[in-house]
Order: sequence, then C-alpha cells, then structure tokens
Amino acid sequence: MPKIVDHDERRRELLSAAHRVIVRDGIDAATTRAIAKEAGYSNGVLAHYFADKDEILLSALRQSHRRIRERLARKVEGAGGLAALRELLLDNLPLDAERTQETRLEVSFWSRSLASERLAEVQRTEADELRAVVRGLLAEARAAGELRGDDSLDDVTEHLLALVDGLSLHLLLYPGRLRRVDLERIMLAQLDRL
Amino acid sequence: MPKIVDHDERRRELLSAAHRVIVRDGIDAATTRAIAKEAGYSNGVLAHYFADKDEILLSALRQSHRRIRERLARKVEGAGGLAALRELLLDNLPLDAERTQETRLEVSFWSRSLASERLAEVQRTEADELRAVVRGLLAEARAAGELRGDDSLDDVTEHLLALVDGLSLHLLLYPGRLRRVDLERIMLAQLDRL
Repeated sequence: MPKIVDHDERRRELLSAAHRVIVRDGIDAATTRAIAKEAGYSNGVLAHYFADKDEILLSALRQSHRRIRERLARKVEGAGGLAALRELLLDNLPLDAERTQETRLEVSFWSRSLASERLAEVQRTEADELRAVVRGLLAEARAAGELRGDDSLDDVTEHLLALVDGLSLHLLLYPGRLRRVDLERIMLAQLDRL
Repeated sequence: MPKIVDHDERRRELLSAAHRVIVRDGIDAATTRAIAKEAGYSNGVLAHYFADKDEILLSALRQSHRRIRERLARKVEGAGGLAALRELLLDNLPLDAERTQETRLEVSFWSRSLASERLAEVQRTEADELRAVVRGLLAEARAAGELRGDDSLDDVTEHLLALVDGLSLHLLLYPGRLRRVDLERIMLAQLDRL
C-alpha cells in the first residue's frame, strides 16, 4: 500500500529544518542540500516543495512572522493604545530563547535583502504591516490622552522601530556589553517619554 | 628588469576591490575569486596577501572604519561635547553616497558575524571604541552643562548607537518609506531631548 503523504505537514517540517539551519549555522550555510539533510529528506523531495533556496528562505521568514503575530495577538488580547504598544515592542526584542532565534533569522535576512530585490520586497511588505500596527496603536494612545508630548506619530513610529532593530542587533552582536534587562529598560524609558 | 611591486599599494587595491564587490553584489558573492577578478589579479596573487576570505573581509571592514575615523576627526576638529557628538552621529548615518556604501558594508557583516566568532570579535572591538567615544562626549557635554536631563549616560549611549544602526538599516531596506532628511530629523530630535 502506498504511503499517504501529508504535504502541508511535510512542508512545515522542511521550513522548521530551514529555520534551524539558518539560526544555527548562518544563512550562507543554509543550502538546499543542508536543509534537506537536516529534515532527513533527499534533495529531490525538497525540490517538490520549493523552487529554489530563496523560496525556502522567504517561506521560513513568513512562517516566523506568522508565529510572532499569533503570539502577539494572544498577548495583547483586549488591550489597546500604549499598553498594547508596550507588549508589541517588548515582544519584538530578543528577551528569551525563542525570540533570540527569531532575531537571528531577521538579522540573517537583512544583508541578503540588500543583494536580492525579491527578498527585499517581502521584507518591505512585512515591515509595512508592523509599522501600520505601531502607528495605529500610537494614534489610539493619543486619542485616549495617554501621550503627554505632541511629537509627530510618524517620527515616533520610525524611532521606536529603529530602536527595536538596533537594540536587538546589539544584544546579539555584543552579549558582554548588553543584557536583556538593559534592552527592556532602555525600550520602556522611551515609551515613558511619549 | 623585474618589476618592483609596491606591496602596500597592491594590498590597498585588493581591499578596495573587496569593498566594491561586497557593496555591489553582497557579502555572499564576495569570494576570493570574485575579488581577484575585480582587482584584475589572479587568485594566486590574492593568496599572497590574505590567508582566506574572512581575512580579506575583516581587512576591508577595518579599512572602512579607519577611513570613517579619519573623516570624522577632520569634522570635529576643535569641537567637543554635544557639538562633536552631533557630528559623530550624523556622520554614522547613510546621508550621502559614500556613507551609504559604508553602511551596506556594515550590514553585510552583521549576519556573518553571528555565524563566525572571529568576525564577531573584531566587530566587538571596533564597536567598543565607538561606544567609548560616544560615552566620553556625553560626559563632556554633561560636565559643560549642555544636558538638561539626568539620564544614565550608559543608557543614553546604547540608545543613540542602537538608533544609528536601526535607522541606517531601515533607510537601506525601506527606501520608499524613509528619506535621508527623515533620518537626520529623527536623530537630531533625540539629541535635543538630552
């Protein structure tokens, strides 16, 4: 009797394998061959699911973003304005093992996106979504009278998002210089000033 | 008569070629073969000057940092405290073509450093220098009464440096969303709050 293959399940397995290889060995090492090996399949199987390396990498990035969004939706359920923004920004920092892996995946994509318009386009779409959410929560906070200052909300949005990526990067690159508790304090101090 | 080779000059040529290849094609594409071709030399010549790809990349990074330091030293000559800090932070943003190339080089190194302890170590040493300079200028500014707030200078330093890298990255990744003038305004607004 032929074995029945659950294609969605196998696709998820392959993406999880890609995620593990990128985070552990770097994006350069994440060849289709290495990903197939990690998942315990042949190169041929991989080719059934993904056209090329970039397609696997993009799918891994999207899968990671989907997981982040689902986790965040649970965290901010019922909250809005500044309280939800606070959760969102902290959730985007590498404050535990899971989010450290997510951040490593993001950083790996940054440099590759600079050399590939296809990756860059996906990065931009995903980043635009995050920006719209942050901008929306800031508008809610202002409408609710939660903000003291009258700074441009566009500028505040860009400032906070740049800070998230800069701090995340620095924790990964300079672990002896910054600790998770420093990141959290520096981020929250910026929210307190709004 | 045998040709006399100026080794320092040739080394500089090879590093400039490496810089061009990384910025144009990405760090993945910067193989020893591609760099030798860009410089117009054989692979054999390259091997005389550098042990491996990482050594070339590290040398290119150090050369870029040296150029940045020299340029900055000219810009801040005679200045100190907040005025010098302002120059330093703006000089580290990709506000013209030259600094955009420098930023591309930096971003290319970030993800590679996460996978290579040797690269990471150099990154850390270079970053520590920059942090010490920023921290020193903030202390000067405070001593001169130029700062209104009493924030921890360590936290201010980390905040400003994270912002520099985050904003620089976002300008490169999201050129349709941020302009150079936005970066400058957002950065200077943070200095004005100190």
